[in-house]
Amino acid sequence: MTNHGEVFNALRAHLRKTSLVASASELLEWDERTGMPVDGREFRAEQVAYLSGLVHDMRTSPEIESWLDQLSGWSDADAPHGDVGATVRLVRKDYEKQKRLPKALVEAIASATVRGQGRWDAARKADDYRQFQPALDEMISLQRQAGECLADDGQTTYEALLDQYEPDAKADELSRVFANLRGELVQLLDEIKGSTRQVDETLLKKQYPVDGQRSLSRTLAEAIGFDFNRGRLDETSHPFCTNLGPSDCRILTRYDSSWLPGSIFGTLHEAGHGMYEQGLPQDWYGLPPGTYASLGIHESQSRLWENLVGRSAEFWQCFAPLMQETFGENIAAEKWHASFNRVTPSLIRVEADEATYNLHIIVRFELEQALISGELSTDDLPAVWNERYENVIGVRPPSDADGVLQDVHWSAGLFGYFPTYTLGNLIAAQLYAAADKSLGDLNGMIARGEFEPLLTWLRENVHAHGRKYSADEIVQNATGRSLSAEPLVASLRERYSLVYDVSPPASASTTSS
Amino acid sequence: MTNHGEVFNALRAHLRKTSLVASASELLEWDERTGMPVDGREFRAEQVAYLSGLVHDMRTSPEIESWLDQLSGWSDADAPHGDVGATVRLVRKDYEKQKRLPKALVEAIASATVRGQGRWDAARKADDYRQFQPALDEMISLQRQAGECLADDGQTTYEALLDQYEPDAKADELSRVFANLRGELVQLLDEIKGSTRQVDETLLKKQYPVDGQRSLSRTLAEAIGFDFNRGRLDETSHPFCTNLGPSDCRILTRYDSSWLPGSIFGTLHEAGHGMYEQGLPQDWYGLPPGTYASLGIHESQSRLWENLVGRSAEFWQCFAPLMQETFGENIAAEKWHASFNRVTPSLIRVEADEATYNLHIIVRFELEQALISGELSTDDLPAVWNERYENVIGVRPPSDADGVLQDVHWSAGLFGYFPTYTLGNLIAAQLYAAADKSLGDLNGMIARGEFEPLLTWLRENVHAHGRKYSADEIVQNATGRSLSAEPLVASLRERYSLVYDVSPPASASTTSS
Repeated sequence: MTNHGEVFNALRAHLRKTSLVASASELLEWDERTGMPVDGREFRAEQVAYLSGLVHDMRTSPEIESWLDQLSGWSDADAPHGDVGATVRLVRKDYEKQKRLPKALVEAIASATVRGQGRWDAARKADDYRQFQPALDEMISLQRQAGECLADDGQTTYEALLDQYEPDAKADELSRVFANLRGELVQLLDEIKGSTRQVDETLLKKQYPVDGQRSLSRTLAEAIGFDFNRGRLDETSHPFCTNLGPSDCRILTRYDSSWLPGSIFGTLHEAGHGMYEQGLPQDWYGLPPGTYASLGIHESQSRLWENLVGRSAEFWQCFAPLMQETFGENIAAEKWHASFNRVTPSLIRVEADEATYNLHIIVRFELEQALISGELSTDDLPAVWNERYENVIGVRPPSDADGVLQDVHWSAGLFGYFPTYTLGNLIAAQLYAAADKSLGDLNGMIARGEFEPLLTWLRENVHAHGRKYSADEIVQNATGRSLSAEPLVASLRERYSLVYDVSPPASASTTSS
Repeated sequence: MTNHGEVFNALRAHLRKTSLVASASELLEWDERTGMPVDGREFRAEQVAYLSGLVHDMRTSPEIESWLDQLSGWSDADAPHGDVGATVRLVRKDYEKQKRLPKALVEAIASATVRGQGRWDAARKADDYRQFQPALDEMISLQRQAGECLADDGQTTYEALLDQYEPDAKADELSRVFANLRGELVQLLDEIKGSTRQVDETLLKKQYPVDGQRSLSRTLAEAIGFDFNRGRLDETSHPFCTNLGPSDCRILTRYDSSWLPGSIFGTLHEAGHGMYEQGLPQDWYGLPPGTYASLGIHESQSRLWENLVGRSAEFWQCFAPLMQETFGENIAAEKWHASFNRVTPSLIRVEADEATYNLHIIVRFELEQALISGELSTDDLPAVWNERYENVIGVRPPSDADGVLQDVHWSAGLFGYFPTYTLGNLIAAQLYAAADKSLGDLNGMIARGEFEPLLTWLRENVHAHGRKYSADEIVQNATGRSLSAEPLVASLRERYSLVYDVSPPASASTTSS
């Protein structure tokens, strides 16, 4: 008779070993983006490719299939949301997807990713899109091949890529939600443009020494709950978060002496990602119960801390004294709050205000679908990018460095990734409203610098579940309803009603930030 | 018929892949020592152990034996110092050694190394040897097992460990050379103690801001020839150098605002190591022609730049203006030179002057032999350490943090490593004298900041050979004679004759620094 417990432990040990190699590979990539010597890139590409191939071999090992077969019909494995059942169910799904990807393609993508990022970085610095174009062409071709291998029946190539980041998402459904949100945002923007109040940008563009920003970033990340015994904060050109082990989460931000919000909100954002990773069940690191549910859920955690908490009036009531201490100037909390909520259509996604941010995503979402389907060529991409920016956001990039070259994603092979940012915004607002309802005086807590109740609520309602529930199920269980754009729109209206002459939301009591 | 070229290429490709995994493992260790979150240690230990096991599997793969067998009798493989011949010869040697080590022991050592360093670090900070003792006991036991597996006929367990760092070295021969050197050093020290001249230590212990030290370190490393496109300089508690790829060499130093020589000579030392790695044939990275010859040769490169160049009167003639620029004080070159050559018996090896440094090594060399043979127990180690320091160097450590806990080596499993430091000092002086003879006015070049001729001489006479020649052969070929203590003693006498009343060497023309 099969000893199911033993078979499951063998599966679990194999996946643990796989995570040891996978996270070594992630360290290679973190290091590459934080300070690897420039001439080290070729060897690093070879190295990341080899380790990626090794991980692929481990994830597609025939032993896995045999273990899964032996576990089928076992009652523990049939409880879909238990640790064991979810592991068996999701490992099966991942295994079947991985098996469809030829190892040579996995290695080619890993290698192209390292080289592509190098080309992108150089091209952006030189403001020369043509330097990057061949690497982009190669990456699109590789991603298209991957999408074709991964696509289930009824899935488009693009959806198969999207599925890697947001399981079961449908491109046409996203398009509908985004179109709806776009309508609401355009109306909101019109009200803001018509407002008699103006927000001064002086405070944002003043010189704030990088040393002060660095210490402020660390203090804020620590205050909201990022654990520095289990993580660290570094500097890079494009902020990100990567988790290198159950107690080793790396977040990265950037410092610009003449753009203070870049480091503050970059840090709060990445710390939000990091706190999610730190809240996942440690014992299950590298297995589904210890893994994030989807990138939309991941992004909801970063956006919640960055925007719902970090851009609230109460947050700046709490931290205005720290700003004075750090930079030596006495500025009223209301002025910081207004400045950090200034709305102005601009070119750079990562510096965009919340009213226009999702419009940046919509442009990328449309363009990347066209790149993958082949409707749009990379020859035409910069021109089309600039045209869309003008039409959708009302600004035209004066250079490709501020246009199509601004994001690392495509150079790193991340097609289908952008829409998860807007999903994250939607989910963040909905979770925040539910937490507020559950905890009572959340605004008061923030004003007093008490972030732990909110973090605990997120730990219990989101983090503790890992991947055992889908993004939809997590949202439904935590908030009592399915995903809706209403909480985000309500939250923006409430916040902007303090800054501009916009109507507050119809039912202001459900959100507050 | 065997196609030898193809077989050799298969061997070479396999070793290249092995180097990809091995250097990923080295990055994990570099990262652990530069800033990994403290709670990440357990997972990192598991990870390093797993990758070390993987590397061990690759290095002991039966395919290697089959390739080597097929290559035997091939004329290229019989040219012992050609790229191919040296590769076949040394891979065979390594393979046979590796095969004797059980994989479980390799993994246990890798894991104990990560944990041991953590214990050592905590114990040193707490000045509590007993916290570290269990980890040290475990490591000694593991190293003893390894030595027993590795020992050839006629080799002691300790010599088998030493052989890993200094191939073919004999403990009793080293003991004789060291005893000889010790006699010369004791006489030199007596002359210095009896000198009417005194060197003030004020300059060394003044406050020099860490930021200034950091920029100075980078400038000096760059000036002598460390290539920052192919390497970087970081900060750690115990300086070291690690090579992560053919164009990715990491050197690390430490900064103490009240101990300027720590960063300057730490940096010159590690840059010397780094320049050796950067000078090895890149195409053969991870294979014998692209690997250092021995740790004694490696150390000769660091000591040469640290001491023969970096502590010379001419070096400070060259850099006194930079010191003024960096720290804002006008101090004569002669005063820097005298201060950096101040002799005073002290407790900490890495801060020791050159006259006493090798006495620190002799203490460790004797104690580690006794620990491995079992003559000395870890219970008695701190007391015996303190007693030896008093007898040999004339100082008694007031605490274990400044005594037996000062070095990371034993916690990292490095038994048989210390004697290579003194070998390095001996070889450095002999190489420098030969370079001086060959290049003509080496002192004048240093005074003018021209370091390239010396680096080129080292590239040609040492670096270019990789491991194709033994340490002894490299010394013999580069200097025209076998290893002798005379050049080191002559060099020290010459330098100290400028600072203290000691007799210059009999034939001063053969050395100059």
